[in-house]
Amino acid sequence: MRLPIATIFPAVEWLRDYRRADLASDLLAGVIVTIMLIPQSLAYALLAGLPPQVGLYASILPLIAYALFGSSRTLSVGPVAVVSLMTAAAVSKIALPGSPEYVAAALLLALLSGVFLLALGLARLGAIANLLSHPVISGFISASAVLIAVSQMKHILGVTVQGHSLAEILPSLLGQLADTNLPTLAIGALGIGFLFWVRASLKPLLVRAGLGPRLADALAKAGPVAAVIFSVTAVTLLDLQDAGVRIVGDIPRGLPPLTLPAFDPELWQRLLPAAALIGLVGFVESVSVAETLGARRRQRIDANQELVGLGAANIGAAITGGFPVTGGFSRSVVNFAAGAETPLAGVITAGLIALTVAFLTPLFFYLPNAVLAATIIVAVLTLVDLGAIRRTWRYSKSDFAAMAATIILVLAVGVEAGIVAGVALSVALFLWRTTRPHMAVVGLVPGTEHFRNIERHAVVQSETVLTIRVDESLYFANSRYLERQILSAVADRPMISDVVLMCPAVNFIDASALESLEAIADRLTSAGVKLHLSEVKGPVTDRLKRSDFFDHLTGQIFLSQYEAMSSLDPGSIQGRAASPPTPASPSMNAGSHGEIPTMK
Amino acid sequence: MRLPIATIFPAVEWLRDYRRADLASDLLAGVIVTIMLIPQSLAYALLAGLPPQVGLYASILPLIAYALFGSSRTLSVGPVAVVSLMTAAAVSKIALPGSPEYVAAALLLALLSGVFLLALGLARLGAIANLLSHPVISGFISASAVLIAVSQMKHILGVTVQGHSLAEILPSLLGQLADTNLPTLAIGALGIGFLFWVRASLKPLLVRAGLGPRLADALAKAGPVAAVIFSVTAVTLLDLQDAGVRIVGDIPRGLPPLTLPAFDPELWQRLLPAAALIGLVGFVESVSVAETLGARRRQRIDANQELVGLGAANIGAAITGGFPVTGGFSRSVVNFAAGAETPLAGVITAGLIALTVAFLTPLFFYLPNAVLAATIIVAVLTLVDLGAIRRTWRYSKSDFAAMAATIILVLAVGVEAGIVAGVALSVALFLWRTTRPHMAVVGLVPGTEHFRNIERHAVVQSETVLTIRVDESLYFANSRYLERQILSAVADRPMISDVVLMCPAVNFIDASALESLEAIADRLTSAGVKLHLSEVKGPVTDRLKRSDFFDHLTGQIFLSQYEAMSSLDPGSIQGRAASPPTPASPSMNAGSHGEIPTMK
Repeated sequence: MRLPIATIFPAVEWLRDYRRADLASDLLAGVIVTIMLIPQSLAYALLAGLPPQVGLYASILPLIAYALFGSSRTLSVGPVAVVSLMTAAAVSKIALPGSPEYVAAALLLALLSGVFLLALGLARLGAIANLLSHPVISGFISASAVLIAVSQMKHILGVTVQGHSLAEILPSLLGQLADTNLPTLAIGALGIGFLFWVRASLKPLLVRAGLGPRLADALAKAGPVAAVIFSVTAVTLLDLQDAGVRIVGDIPRGLPPLTLPAFDPELWQRLLPAAALIGLVGFVESVSVAETLGARRRQRIDANQELVGLGAANIGAAITGGFPVTGGFSRSVVNFAAGAETPLAGVITAGLIALTVAFLTPLFFYLPNAVLAATIIVAVLTLVDLGAIRRTWRYSKSDFAAMAATIILVLAVGVEAGIVAGVALSVALFLWRTTRPHMAVVGLVPGTEHFRNIERHAVVQSETVLTIRVDESLYFANSRYLERQILSAVADRPMISDVVLMCPAVNFIDASALESLEAIADRLTSAGVKLHLSEVKGPVTDRLKRSDFFDHLTGQIFLSQYEAMSSLDPGSIQGRAASPPTPASPSMNAGSHGEIPTMK
Repeated sequence: MRLPIATIFPAVEWLRDYRRADLASDLLAGVIVTIMLIPQSLAYALLAGLPPQVGLYASILPLIAYALFGSSRTLSVGPVAVVSLMTAAAVSKIALPGSPEYVAAALLLALLSGVFLLALGLARLGAIANLLSHPVISGFISASAVLIAVSQMKHILGVTVQGHSLAEILPSLLGQLADTNLPTLAIGALGIGFLFWVRASLKPLLVRAGLGPRLADALAKAGPVAAVIFSVTAVTLLDLQDAGVRIVGDIPRGLPPLTLPAFDPELWQRLLPAAALIGLVGFVESVSVAETLGARRRQRIDANQELVGLGAANIGAAITGGFPVTGGFSRSVVNFAAGAETPLAGVITAGLIALTVAFLTPLFFYLPNAVLAATIIVAVLTLVDLGAIRRTWRYSKSDFAAMAATIILVLAVGVEAGIVAGVALSVALFLWRTTRPHMAVVGLVPGTEHFRNIERHAVVQSETVLTIRVDESLYFANSRYLERQILSAVADRPMISDVVLMCPAVNFIDASALESLEAIADRLTSAGVKLHLSEVKGPVTDRLKRSDFFDHLTGQIFLSQYEAMSSLDPGSIQGRAASPPTPASPSMNAGSHGEIPTMK
């Protein structure tokens, strides 16, 4: 049973049933995720152009807020790569990286994004995320990953590069190749090599060495931590910071400060579109991870509750010095695999990160930025999904067009232009497709009561009754096409005295299509041809009754197409049906505004 | 027969068949339209904030260009009210009314609008105009008419008012009531009263006086010309210009100058959105007039050829000192009623206007602006269609919402904001509607092979096979909803071993929906339930074969739903069908990638 209060705090449900056995699992998962999250949170803050502590701050309260309000039991919330990239793109239009205004704008972005998600969730408008089609999201993630990897090369080379698109970054990067800091490059290259090796080869090696597969997997996931430890040791011992290797440096010790974003209406307005995009992209990514994991344990994910949970997490980030967060794929999978039973695992992670930020930040003083960049590069390259691009190309050229537009614009112009172009193009292509509704002239399949497309089946047609089946709902974008098609079909057949529009797949007729139907009826009438409808759905007929349509309709509305033909041209179907015409259902002249037979 | 060259110059067709008898009709119509057009072209130039001669210039070459390239035989092209209002709104953002830059920007607007229409026509993309739904266009015209009437009150009162929305115009107008020029007000009020009287009462009066209805009608249409003659006489005799009555003044005599809009990329970019909107709105209005008139004489209107014709007309306006033009409703109706047989009537009108501008402009020196404003006000108020607003409200609340948004924004903010908001809202509401595709659990109607909604019909259901009929195409905006609905329907029925998705109304499945179907199949498989499809259309199956879908599908694809039930749970339909199961069509396991039965 779902308690009423659980509709606000889903946490009530899992807290009420909490068992001692769960605690051991949650504790283990919480520790493992913390080990992954520490280097990730530092790295994604670097990617977003923010001081390292901001990454840690964004990994405390947001996790607790999601645990209280989210609907997934295993989602791991915090800084993620794509959202960090989008944050950098949005905030660097407002302020200089490194300035206090930059940090304040990132905070505000988290607040606006959180309020936007919360509002969508409370208004139950989660369906808006459906506008981001799979190919657009997939192309966006792949292109963003490439962009992130390229943008992080500056840390591997030890040079300074600005820009948020390949067109800006690449020339700047190539122009500075000569300024490469060799010790930095050595650390970065070793880091990348080591992390790739860990990812690809360590687990099988450990399994062959006799370790259990689960322990081997956990150790392999700790690769970034090992890289952190090795590199901090190397920098400390060799004084590499004096050789020009940039290090994380001083991270303020202590719990996150309470922060309140400034109220500056003009700034809010400038950041709102980016905040909404970041919120939507983060939500779509997060909810798909949550659903994948939820399905494996048959746990229900409520999309609107997820909006509330992620909204609360972002507001939590905004009031404790953080930046935009969402549910991350790799961490959530690790959390799930490590056996997390409830969101308490996330709360435990939050507590451990809080301890880290309170006491352990001096340990990261000598951590080279190049190693953080290496962890980012290795992590994001797994997000590039070339297979999805190939599959989309093969399956649907219009989906591929939207995907390609997204990829090209992300790389050439930037993340915001890419996602907006992808969504706009996929909507435009969809509208374009419905602009020409599928229509077919149909005839009777001999020996049955079925009517089928005359071009695909051996069917019997009447000489005086033309039946056109419409296979889509009728609305403003296709109503003119309908008008033209019907009138030209009639113009081609001078013998016709009746036209039946068969509407089994028409779910609605909007005001524009209604005007077109009235125009069709009027023009047919003036040509001495009657218009009839058949197999109209109940709700459609109910609505038509609220209009003047039946003043224009000279023909009838029939329950079934077979009945229409039995009435209008019995000769054309006699002896051809499987059974004698069914006892006539009550058909009547539609002009009388009385009871009209409907079906659904 | 349609000559090849006629696909470029439709004029070839009517020129080839031209008969002497047509000439008399075209000549009469040309003269009558000229009498209407002279005051209108002066008035609409005034409305657009342009010198009077610009209106006359826009009534010469554009008419000839349309006669050569357009597909309607009776459409009368030239300055019209709504397009003039949109021109004023767009151009006054760029330059001060009255300045040479203002006139140059209007010229450029005509060029850009013409090139845009021409490009759409050549690319055969006329369908883009379908985005302007009937309620949005109707609301836009009504609201624009109110805005025009209010904006012209300044000429009636003889005051100076700026602004392009009611919110700007009304306070400014009310604040200057005290400055009203009384002679101007007297002329304006008399003009409005006279023109309303002519429109409402003159024709019946003339008919009662024994005139033929056609002549009476023609005389009644000449009301504005009478007002012009009366007022010019009055101003001349009474020296009213010395009393502060603003008059048209000096109009340069001579044929239109050849003009070439300046090439200023920044200006082009700023005007392009407005030019596209003006082009689209003008096209939609014009083509609906052309189709209405064409249908009465069974003449075909080709929408793409209309784009070419109107594009040529606007380019013609741009190179001869004009401003944006389109086909006008009232003039076209008069042209049609006066008996115009071919576009030669338009060429004759153009010639007469050229004669006017070459020799007769001194006649308009003493013409008061107040009388031009009166003709505008009386003309546009007939465009307000309150009945359409009421009908739309009754028929469809979502269409009404788009209409209301258009009206409110046109009045409160301006024409561009209104049309953009209307289109955006109608597209958004359409997408929203398709976000939740209609789906129904179906069962067998006893004694037939038909399957119908279990909630609306007395049907027989299988205990182990769940059949869900989907009534819409599956695409990115509704694929998640499909996923949720199917999985929760299965979760509610633990006895189910097979799910059949019945797809008679599914016209396409995009890449997002494909991924959802694969996810559904996988999740059902892991729950021990098989997924089958039935009544899938041919093109949809062809496309599915290009994907990995059949690797995920554990069940089969059936030609008909009846066949699916005969195979999956024969017990549930035995003795209930009308006839014994039809000889099995070749159903097979879909996993084998072989020939899959399809229907359409």
